[in-house]
Amino acid sequence: MDIRFSGFGGQGIIKSGMLIGKAASLFDNKFATLTQSFGPEARGGACSAQVVIDHNRVLYPYIIAPEILVSMSQEAYEKFIGDPVKGSIVLTDSDLVKPKKIRDDVQLFSIPATRIAEEMGNRIFANVVMVGFFTAITDVVSLDAMKKALPGSVPERFLSTNIEALEKGFEYGKNLKKQ
Amino acid sequence: MDIRFSGFGGQGIIKSGMLIGKAASLFDNKFATLTQSFGPEARGGACSAQVVIDHNRVLYPYIIAPEILVSMSQEAYEKFIGDPVKGSIVLTDSDLVKPKKIRDDVQLFSIPATRIAEEMGNRIFANVVMVGFFTAITDVVSLDAMKKALPGSVPERFLSTNIEALEKGFEYGKNLKKQ
Repeated sequence: MDIRFSGFGGQGIIKSGMLIGKAASLFDNKFATLTQSFGPEARGGACSAQVVIDHNRVLYPYIIAPEILVSMSQEAYEKFIGDPVKGSIVLTDSDLVKPKKIRDDVQLFSIPATRIAEEMGNRIFANVVMVGFFTAITDVVSLDAMKKALPGSVPERFLSTNIEALEKGFEYGKNLKKQ
Repeated sequence: MDIRFSGFGGQGIIKSGMLIGKAASLFDNKFATLTQSFGPEARGGACSAQVVIDHNRVLYPYIIAPEILVSMSQEAYEKFIGDPVKGSIVLTDSDLVKPKKIRDDVQLFSIPATRIAEEMGNRIFANVVMVGFFTAITDVVSLDAMKKALPGSVPERFLSTNIEALEKGFEYGKNLKKQ
């Protein structure tokens, strides 16, 4: 499964990819690689993390056409929306991304992740809300594995808030799928 | 330039790769990618981070044969020592790695990075001592860029100690090269 998380610097995009890779490998017994790019992207533009998850050792960790694209900024969305393969899933922050020209061959799911995080007290949790949403919509990793991946990867004092953020995103996704 | 940092979990191997990629791209105007693997490696065995640095956009971030191998554990050394291309540079922690069967076609440089860090008060700085050593031996990134890469990537209250660790590793490397 080829996944690209994208957004702008400071949104915790790399951390999101890392959490998913950690959950899949350590707690769902799969293999994963995470690739991040530095360069002009890291200098303020769209940033992205690429996660490849497989039942076997990942031999080629670089993604040309992701099967799941997550975009948390308009710039990232426009940069990457042309890439996903046919039938892929696209997840966006509904307040931050206006999908102008959505393709017929992708399924779009949106969540106001940043707004939900702000209601929890800090937009810093928006990426974990999105990871919870991702978990509900895609079934790539289990919610249980995602929860186990948080300790050690987020500050200890914010662990319970991160679990709450994860669950809020997950619930939002589950309700959306029921519709 | 293809670089592999390796060691065991908890040594800050991924952070080392990240610091080098950040330094090269943000402060030396190059392009970089960082790839980390999860899976059995992340479950306690040898862990590694792969950094590719180039003057142009990196198209293929996966390393088959690194030109620089850094090993901070015996297990990682033995796992990866067969990989480097002819003429490559191998850096090790001299207290943690005993290079049993060193190839004729690689150049070996060693530093007691962990011991130097312990003398500074905490072995947690060993990876940054090694990054300083790497900077002196390989010339892939400048010392100035490495120093600029630390803020935001290490805890604020340990910034000055990290700079000191970087400089200690760098000095050790410069003195070794003079010999």
